[in-house]
Amino acid sequence: MAILPEKAAKNLMAVRENKPLIHNITNYVVMNYTANALLAMGASPVMAHAHNEVEAMVSFAGALVLNIGTLSDSWIASMIKAGKKASKLRIPIILDPVGAGATALRTDSAKKIIDETRISVIRGNASEILSLRQEDSKTKGVDSVHSVDEAAETAKILAGELKTMLAITGPVDLITDGKRVVRVSNGHPLMGYVTGTGCTATVTIGAFLAVDNDPVSATATALAFFGLAGEVAGAKADAPGSFMIQMLDALYTITPEMLKEGCKIQEE
Amino acid sequence: MAILPEKAAKNLMAVRENKPLIHNITNYVVMNYTANALLAMGASPVMAHAHNEVEAMVSFAGALVLNIGTLSDSWIASMIKAGKKASKLRIPIILDPVGAGATALRTDSAKKIIDETRISVIRGNASEILSLRQEDSKTKGVDSVHSVDEAAETAKILAGELKTMLAITGPVDLITDGKRVVRVSNGHPLMGYVTGTGCTATVTIGAFLAVDNDPVSATATALAFFGLAGEVAGAKADAPGSFMIQMLDALYTITPEMLKEGCKIQEE
Amino acid sequence: MAILPEKAAKNLMAVRENKPLIHNITNYVVMNYTANALLAMGASPVMAHAHNEVEAMVSFAGALVLNIGTLSDSWIASMIKAGKKASKLRIPIILDPVGAGATALRTDSAKKIIDETRISVIRGNASEILSLRQEDSKTKGVDSVHSVDEAAETAKILAGELKTMLAITGPVDLITDGKRVVRVSNGHPLMGYVTGTGCTATVTIGAFLAVDNDPVSATATALAFFGLAGEVAGAKADAPGSFMIQMLDALYTITPEMLKEGCKIQEE
Repeated sequence: MAILPEKAAKNLMAVRENKPLIHNITNYVVMNYTANALLAMGASPVMAHAHNEVEAMVSFAGALVLNIGTLSDSWIASMIKAGKKASKLRIPIILDPVGAGATALRTDSAKKIIDETRISVIRGNASEILSLRQEDSKTKGVDSVHSVDEAAETAKILAGELKTMLAITGPVDLITDGKRVVRVSNGHPLMGYVTGTGCTATVTIGAFLAVDNDPVSATATALAFFGLAGEVAGAKADAPGSFMIQMLDALYTITPEMLKEGCKIQEE
Repeated sequence: MAILPEKAAKNLMAVRENKPLIHNITNYVVMNYTANALLAMGASPVMAHAHNEVEAMVSFAGALVLNIGTLSDSWIASMIKAGKKASKLRIPIILDPVGAGATALRTDSAKKIIDETRISVIRGNASEILSLRQEDSKTKGVDSVHSVDEAAETAKILAGELKTMLAITGPVDLITDGKRVVRVSNGHPLMGYVTGTGCTATVTIGAFLAVDNDPVSATATALAFFGLAGEVAGAKADAPGSFMIQMLDALYTITPEMLKEGCKIQEE
Repeated sequence: MAILPEKAAKNLMAVRENKPLIHNITNYVVMNYTANALLAMGASPVMAHAHNEVEAMVSFAGALVLNIGTLSDSWIASMIKAGKKASKLRIPIILDPVGAGATALRTDSAKKIIDETRISVIRGNASEILSLRQEDSKTKGVDSVHSVDEAAETAKILAGELKTMLAITGPVDLITDGKRVVRVSNGHPLMGYVTGTGCTATVTIGAFLAVDNDPVSATATALAFFGLAGEVAGAKADAPGSFMIQMLDALYTITPEMLKEGCKIQEE
């Protein structure tokens, strides 16, 4: 049970030592903030989306982050091209299906990326993740999920169907690969008032996946670290502008020891 | 005369209660800051520009913000597509004609958007707004406007010609639908040292239009709120970096009561 | 020897008095931060990339900044179109070859821009700059540069070959036009933890080039100013989020007198 806190400290140390290159094909809104978050925690971000460059760029990367927040057909094509190359090279891919479920373009694009590449982790909120169900899915819809236990059961089935690990973030994050279920309860309410906190959680998972090849422990420890940064920031700031700056500071100042003590990870 | 301060408080409360979705097709420079501003004040931003998505996305929105700051033909086409759909659905549209008058592409694109969609409010500075005059306009050029009264007269004529409401922002904001004239004098000089404060004023109007269907009162109260956030920030910060963060904080911390007391709105 | 500190003060004063318009065709990640930096120091930023607008826009500009950070073929075409117009109008152009050397697209695009336009200054880190060597270059590779003196010798040869001025930034910045060599040692280690500090150094050079037609002194004084802002920020902040905000504040609050006293410029 104390394995994951140890792993959290170890992963954070490894990110800072190895400074993994994280290749992002992401949305315009969060590019700056996620790049700053990756730098603050000790990783190296690169943003590159050109069709004629993504294969070369991803070859150097420790992880590939695909985020459909301001998608267009051309960017989705680049994501798939980069994703196929990463799949071939066994570079971990993490997908953030921003707004899946809201429009057909988003839902379909997310599903297409999942079909055509080897995704290690999908991170989203509950409705985004549940929108990814196939037509013959045995999971229930969002409206019919009434308890934490039902949500976990649904997520386990869906992870099995999609053959990938799922991270459903919220007040308590739920992580499952279809067999294991881990919950992370770090975080702060002001995170909901800063744009791209979800996207930034995603790139944090990317950085941890680059140094830890177990998707479950990489994701759980990354989300604990990111949530703890929210807690540290929330102790210093009481409004979203100051809070988002304090979060970047916390990603830089939290030590492996602080993370080991402060992470709230629970495996079923 | 005390109607608008009451309305300001009511609108702010309504934004926070209803959390209206504001669909933005806007420029790359301000996407992050305007999204954060909308979240801080209590609204829900979404940025989406793909031709094959904007109609679906705008259908959910409480208001549509069109901003031509880093325009290209493809984005303008998306703006018009989204604008036509919003017009049909009677969803209020607000246009920010960034740089109109500076290049033909900007002036022509702004005019095309105005011609092809049903705009509720156009917000810009004096030269941007005056560049939107049609060839047979009876208004005078920027150089010939020498007094506040002349500016108001010109704006009234132009609002009538363009059949929309105009918000000309500056040290004192001038709001007119061709009949009513309202002035708002909240604000702070440091706002001119932060990129996208004009664009952020625009999205604030978008959020208020989503909860108040009178464009004049929605715009006047939104600009008072936004200017008051500048004043609150200016009391805490004396340089632009800290100021822009304090502005986001203020959009979150200003209460309806503070706004009612602090707004400087004058109707002729 | 005291000429450059005097010049630094004079240039900063001139930027604040003339508020030169700096036209940026740059990457998505840093657009907001570089625009804010230009405003904070007293210049006027504009971001415009449309093929059918860049010639008109650059005509008004005091300098053109080309930055290939999130390049694509279409944006490179716009950069070259704007660059050709600026060359014809004798408007100074500064190139930031972000990531040159990392992928063929970046290296080739940077070389193409250099070939087809009249670049006044190229600013990059050592590996970016050295990747711009032509096939028949007499300079040695990055790996073979073992000392500061060798680096200077290599840079001088390369500046002569490329017929432009080079600014190689790092803990000590090296500026050379092939004849003169100037070193600037202002700066702070936290600058490496904020995305786009290199890009922001580049736009600062752009602002100074708009008021000083000697590329060597414009660049050296701009880098001293930018590095001093880092020092001022580093005295107030000890983590990257707060630091990047303090940097914007410092660009606004540093006076010409402070710059004259604080700049660390050394001409060989």
